[in-house]
Amino acid sequence: MKVSKRISSPIILILFLIFFGISVNSNAQTSSNDQPNFIIIFADDLGYGDLSVYGHPTINTPNLDRMAYEGQKWTNFYVGASVCTPSRAALLTGRLPVRNGMASNKHRVLFPDSKNGLPASEITLAEQLKKAGYNTACIGKWHLGHKEQYLPTNNGFDYYFGIPYSNDMDRVVEYPDGGYWNQQNEDIKTEHFNVPLLRNTEIVERPANQNTITKRYSEETISYIKKHKDKPFFIYLAHNLPHIPLFASKEAMGKSKRGLYGDVVEEIDDGVGKILKAIESEGLADNTIVVFTSDNGPWLPFKTNGGSAGLLRAGKGTTWEGGMREPAIFWGPGHIKPGLVTELGSTMDLFTTFSSMAGVEIPQDRIMDGYDLSETLLNHNPSSRKSVLYYRGTDLFAARLGDYKAHFITQGAYGQFGERTEHQTPVLYNLNHDPSEQYNLAEDNAEILQQIKKLVQDHKSKLVKGKDQLAERE
Amino acid sequence: MKVSKRISSPIILILFLIFFGISVNSNAQTSSNDQPNFIIIFADDLGYGDLSVYGHPTINTPNLDRMAYEGQKWTNFYVGASVCTPSRAALLTGRLPVRNGMASNKHRVLFPDSKNGLPASEITLAEQLKKAGYNTACIGKWHLGHKEQYLPTNNGFDYYFGIPYSNDMDRVVEYPDGGYWNQQNEDIKTEHFNVPLLRNTEIVERPANQNTITKRYSEETISYIKKHKDKPFFIYLAHNLPHIPLFASKEAMGKSKRGLYGDVVEEIDDGVGKILKAIESEGLADNTIVVFTSDNGPWLPFKTNGGSAGLLRAGKGTTWEGGMREPAIFWGPGHIKPGLVTELGSTMDLFTTFSSMAGVEIPQDRIMDGYDLSETLLNHNPSSRKSVLYYRGTDLFAARLGDYKAHFITQGAYGQFGERTEHQTPVLYNLNHDPSEQYNLAEDNAEILQQIKKLVQDHKSKLVKGKDQLAERE
Repeated sequence: MKVSKRISSPIILILFLIFFGISVNSNAQTSSNDQPNFIIIFADDLGYGDLSVYGHPTINTPNLDRMAYEGQKWTNFYVGASVCTPSRAALLTGRLPVRNGMASNKHRVLFPDSKNGLPASEITLAEQLKKAGYNTACIGKWHLGHKEQYLPTNNGFDYYFGIPYSNDMDRVVEYPDGGYWNQQNEDIKTEHFNVPLLRNTEIVERPANQNTITKRYSEETISYIKKHKDKPFFIYLAHNLPHIPLFASKEAMGKSKRGLYGDVVEEIDDGVGKILKAIESEGLADNTIVVFTSDNGPWLPFKTNGGSAGLLRAGKGTTWEGGMREPAIFWGPGHIKPGLVTELGSTMDLFTTFSSMAGVEIPQDRIMDGYDLSETLLNHNPSSRKSVLYYRGTDLFAARLGDYKAHFITQGAYGQFGERTEHQTPVLYNLNHDPSEQYNLAEDNAEILQQIKKLVQDHKSKLVKGKDQLAERE
Repeated sequence: MKVSKRISSPIILILFLIFFGISVNSNAQTSSNDQPNFIIIFADDLGYGDLSVYGHPTINTPNLDRMAYEGQKWTNFYVGASVCTPSRAALLTGRLPVRNGMASNKHRVLFPDSKNGLPASEITLAEQLKKAGYNTACIGKWHLGHKEQYLPTNNGFDYYFGIPYSNDMDRVVEYPDGGYWNQQNEDIKTEHFNVPLLRNTEIVERPANQNTITKRYSEETISYIKKHKDKPFFIYLAHNLPHIPLFASKEAMGKSKRGLYGDVVEEIDDGVGKILKAIESEGLADNTIVVFTSDNGPWLPFKTNGGSAGLLRAGKGTTWEGGMREPAIFWGPGHIKPGLVTELGSTMDLFTTFSSMAGVEIPQDRIMDGYDLSETLLNHNPSSRKSVLYYRGTDLFAARLGDYKAHFITQGAYGQFGERTEHQTPVLYNLNHDPSEQYNLAEDNAEILQQIKKLVQDHKSKLVKGKDQLAERE
């Protein structure tokens, strides 16, 4: 191809200089062929519909919106369980909670008087990345065992700063009428919960000041990035909000048109913006992958103190889409190919994908439930994940294969909210055509139902349930 | 401020040349102080939740998403009625349909045997902009009267290309079981509807080939832009889809994971992308404002052949949010200040806003229902609109003032779908906290209810209902 003779020399000079400028700039950053840094930002009880880029009208999340626009916005991305403890266990081990012992039909999650935690035999993503020389930090809510042997620093993390279980536990005040279900959030104070704040294994504050906790988690993350920028790092930033009770800093209070719930989400978003800026100003943008998602859907019985699943059905605690499908945004200018991703993904895939990118072998001595999403993240190719299993406790309630989901059992959120129904003929939805799970297609699709049943049989035939670690309390 | 001595001369040269390059580039475009070009892209029956940037998981609309990211995405933007004819009349006249005669309790919209259309005494936005020397084109569905005196070319438009009423009218085939409510869309052919396609006042094709119509509307728009780029223009591009029956071109069919409905919306989005590219390649980006919205919410009884209102309640035909709140995206790099806008807006405000920007006086001889949104569009200041009136036919069903909406009457979609309930005490929602209209706050908010009642009384005291133009049929 000939260069047109009409291109004048000043323009060539401009082009040359711009190119030269860009080259200098990219040399200042780590090459994108190196082991990338990973940051997982995990919200708590945030619904599918709670970010502006996922359609919320009055929760303004410009930083997450920017991440989505510059990166990949996944719309069929799932968690391993629709409540806290098992969902976190799934993400960190790349395995279904029913295998790793963190699923139970007796108690849905761990409590301050629970005896156990994540078994030592499980391999966390942090342990996995340490094999490849990563520095690792857990900042935020843990909820996989509060006794010392179960804490993050005994599970592959070099550093921990956060609370060991949910922010509504260790209650000092008893609210009337069934806890604080019917309470106005303004009447709830951070002192009503005696939740400890830990640095590594030491309690540094009790009760944790939850008004400032979101801001401090973001600051700790930025500080960790700055200190560890010369070696690859993995940060698991697990915000304990917008799980009720809701708290925000003075600066964030009253800012959102969505009320306190919006203030809380917007403060998380503000932290995301500051973290992205730190990554950029430290010259790490080319070699850092940030993913944002949440542990499960919105806690709907709390009305406007809970979130919104958008157009998805139901919320936290259920195996409807609103309970287990979450916003998932991948950002990383040096790696992630921008665009909307409608392919299937799961938090369990992060273990497999990040291990693969860091060059660490996947454990061969156990069944893993994650898939390597690299080809989708880097090249926008189809996902290697083709199915999703929806567990409630240790029971398989539903399964998705491609476009279709079959419900074998359905039930509303836990506690007083919903009865269990076993379906003789499963209820079948095409989730890509009908994301709100409205139009049962079972009657005309016997073959698809058969395929899903086969998937479930194959899964069950190989399943060895882990010993229930949530059952025992003191 | 002193320039640092450490800045080396090549860098100064780069900065100078980049600045010089930008200047040259912007000089090639029309100055942004001129009268801007306006393009209104109006979809038909598209729901609040039907674009990826408004949260749909499997309808991929990268061009509209881009418009939202580079421009303003409005999340509290309303139409003047929840069905076709009155909604279009509201947009084009800046007045409530109950005033301009295009609202009726007898027939919701105009039909091929309707006798009348938009009264000649009404001033359309096209007539208004012609006063300022604009070239004006209407491309797409009209639905304000199909007789010659009512057509676009007699209502201020220099040029018309499109169909005069809905794409499901003039039926040649009678479907069993109550029309085609229960029909699979694959069984419906474009030949089943004898809808004419007009150029100006001449029928150029009958039945209109609806498979290619969306593509042709976009092409006509681009051709008009190219022909009229030297003078300010106004294009009203009113797609007749995704109103059922759904049709898409060969190129668009089967592309979307959402099925045929998704194919149709993605073909509209594809056209939006091509229109933006044409604006840019013609050097008009700095002085053109493009707005995208829809006439009313999704037609839910058509199940997956209808759209989704996302997290909003109900759809087309109702005064719930799902019927009357729509996606609204304003794009115009020379004018629109980017960001999320949670302020109130209405299609009726386009008349007032665009008149103001073009320097045309607002009619003083009649009550106008639009507000000037310029301050919000250009500077992100609060909207001058503080209230919304929700009419169904000629009855006021609900009113919004600030955050709060009071329902005086509620009813499901028309036809067989829903009973009318008059509320002794209105049902009150805080729409910014509770966009899904779930939690009635009437009991504790007597004062707010009082304020809304006063707003309604003031409105009604000045209201002169226009003569019903929809009632008479041949």
